[in-house]
Amino acid sequence: MANRQWIYARKPNAEVGPEHFDLREAEMPRLESGDVLVRSILLSLDPASRAWMQGATYRSRLNPGDVMAGWGVGEVVESKSDAFAPGDVVTGEYGWQEFTATPARKLTKHDKQHKPEHILGVLGITGLTAYFGMLDVGRPRPGETVLVSGAAGAVGSIAGQIAKIAGCRVVGTTGGADKCKWITEELGFDAAVDYKAGGVYKQVKAACPAGVDVYFDNTGGDVLSAALARMNLFGRVACCGNVSQYNTGAPAAGPAGVPGFLVTKRIRMEGFVVMDFYNRREQAEAALAEWVADGKLKAPVEVVEGFENMPSALAGMFAGKNKGKLMVRV
Amino acid sequence: MANRQWIYARKPNAEVGPEHFDLREAEMPRLESGDVLVRSILLSLDPASRAWMQGATYRSRLNPGDVMAGWGVGEVVESKSDAFAPGDVVTGEYGWQEFTATPARKLTKHDKQHKPEHILGVLGITGLTAYFGMLDVGRPRPGETVLVSGAAGAVGSIAGQIAKIAGCRVVGTTGGADKCKWITEELGFDAAVDYKAGGVYKQVKAACPAGVDVYFDNTGGDVLSAALARMNLFGRVACCGNVSQYNTGAPAAGPAGVPGFLVTKRIRMEGFVVMDFYNRREQAEAALAEWVADGKLKAPVEVVEGFENMPSALAGMFAGKNKGKLMVRV
Repeated sequence: MANRQWIYARKPNAEVGPEHFDLREAEMPRLESGDVLVRSILLSLDPASRAWMQGATYRSRLNPGDVMAGWGVGEVVESKSDAFAPGDVVTGEYGWQEFTATPARKLTKHDKQHKPEHILGVLGITGLTAYFGMLDVGRPRPGETVLVSGAAGAVGSIAGQIAKIAGCRVVGTTGGADKCKWITEELGFDAAVDYKAGGVYKQVKAACPAGVDVYFDNTGGDVLSAALARMNLFGRVACCGNVSQYNTGAPAAGPAGVPGFLVTKRIRMEGFVVMDFYNRREQAEAALAEWVADGKLKAPVEVVEGFENMPSALAGMFAGKNKGKLMVRV
Repeated sequence: MANRQWIYARKPNAEVGPEHFDLREAEMPRLESGDVLVRSILLSLDPASRAWMQGATYRSRLNPGDVMAGWGVGEVVESKSDAFAPGDVVTGEYGWQEFTATPARKLTKHDKQHKPEHILGVLGITGLTAYFGMLDVGRPRPGETVLVSGAAGAVGSIAGQIAKIAGCRVVGTTGGADKCKWITEELGFDAAVDYKAGGVYKQVKAACPAGVDVYFDNTGGDVLSAALARMNLFGRVACCGNVSQYNTGAPAAGPAGVPGFLVTKRIRMEGFVVMDFYNRREQAEAALAEWVADGKLKAPVEVVEGFENMPSALAGMFAGKNKGKLMVRV
């Protein structure tokens, strides 16, 4: 029996596409003592996937020849650890492959009552990123105005809804009229800004008449500049991602308002990575699961069928095709 | 008797100079009930003076025709308030003039045991800015590496010494070999970076072999970019000023590492204005006074004699002429 893997084969200069990956059939991995063999059920596609190909981030850089990195939810098929048994539903950094052998300590076990789509999405890294980034880094107060970029994406769609639950007026930026309509009508955002329609600063100003108190930044770029210019005194910017710059050869200059606006408006701009909060995972997961169960939080998911489609699905994400969390069923 | 005033007469396009100010003889101000008449003893010159001429900052913009704004220490000469009596030593926003009539609530009384130079400098806005910016925003831990830009300036010279008192390795950036020598030999900085010598990133890297944990930013520009690139995980940037951009017509683009480095290295970048901490002024003043008395903190001052020299002294500051706190004796 073989283990299909997608290899990160060639470094993209700009836009990532299927030409940067090779499909390989490897031997089934062998287990050492303490290892667990997991069969991938769903594999996650994230904007960060592209960043890992650019160089070192919060993880060491990927090198051509490596199995492409990524998170997934899977089922234990064999275990040489007392902590796991066949049939357990687990998440971990499996990479883009059908089977993974991994030390037990690198896996997290999940309650089978939750759907795998939720375990990988709203209750997983995506939801935790939105939860901790919004509540612990952004720290919105009821009545404040919260701006979220990448609002139709996996993290942004959850982050904005959490700010609504926290009692805020929430404005999202996304690309295209269709996604603008979707975040307001389906997800309950108060207003939407279409960054593809131009005039981002004017749109942000119109959508946030009382200024911006918290900006949850998934994109960097023009929206970050506009947010800094419209920010209120003591505003907060939760820096989650920089997706406007991932799919380029050379990063652009930073926003002109840094550090000027930061001083005059006493803005706190703070980057975070969800792993720093992982010791509080259960608290967040319980809150998120309750909001989903109560209908307060929608967990939109797009599932692409078929492991062979992973590279094209990643390229599609950067073309702005998906709404909510994008994943591939293996 | 007349009251000499420097009027902010013309807006500079780039470098500020005496041609942007007019000397005027006004009538002595009249006191309303609750007012206090103060004779200026020493008037402060600050990088922010130039920023106020560019537009709104944390204070409303100055307009041509206004008395030039600024802080000072003075002596009460007449009082229509129970809170003050002639002979009291007070600080306030007097502007560039010999006499000021001001409501009592806008004045702060000081202990006459302190020298007026210290009241306006290390125990005043300058010292409080360094104290709260370093300890409350930068939050250095013993053993960490702290980088301070504008290290030979009023705030930077104090901020760096406070970080030494806090047990850190402290590196300062300043312009020219003379000031580099001064901050290391006189003020006890561990190393100096001469931004005028070029290769700022390489110099910062060499001077901070263990990376940068806290960067106290007085300048923005190249030093900010270098600091972000060399910052350690969970580094902090205390954004105090942006002096590299004040004396220009159009601000430059922001540092390329924003927001990328903020995310990957979980950097907190936070602007502050000393007034936000003014309710804790006495705590800071007591600590600063004790350090000065114990010889742990040097409070370098340059006093220019003569009210008529205020504009040329301000221009000289932007030419990098002064070491420590610059003030004019009226």
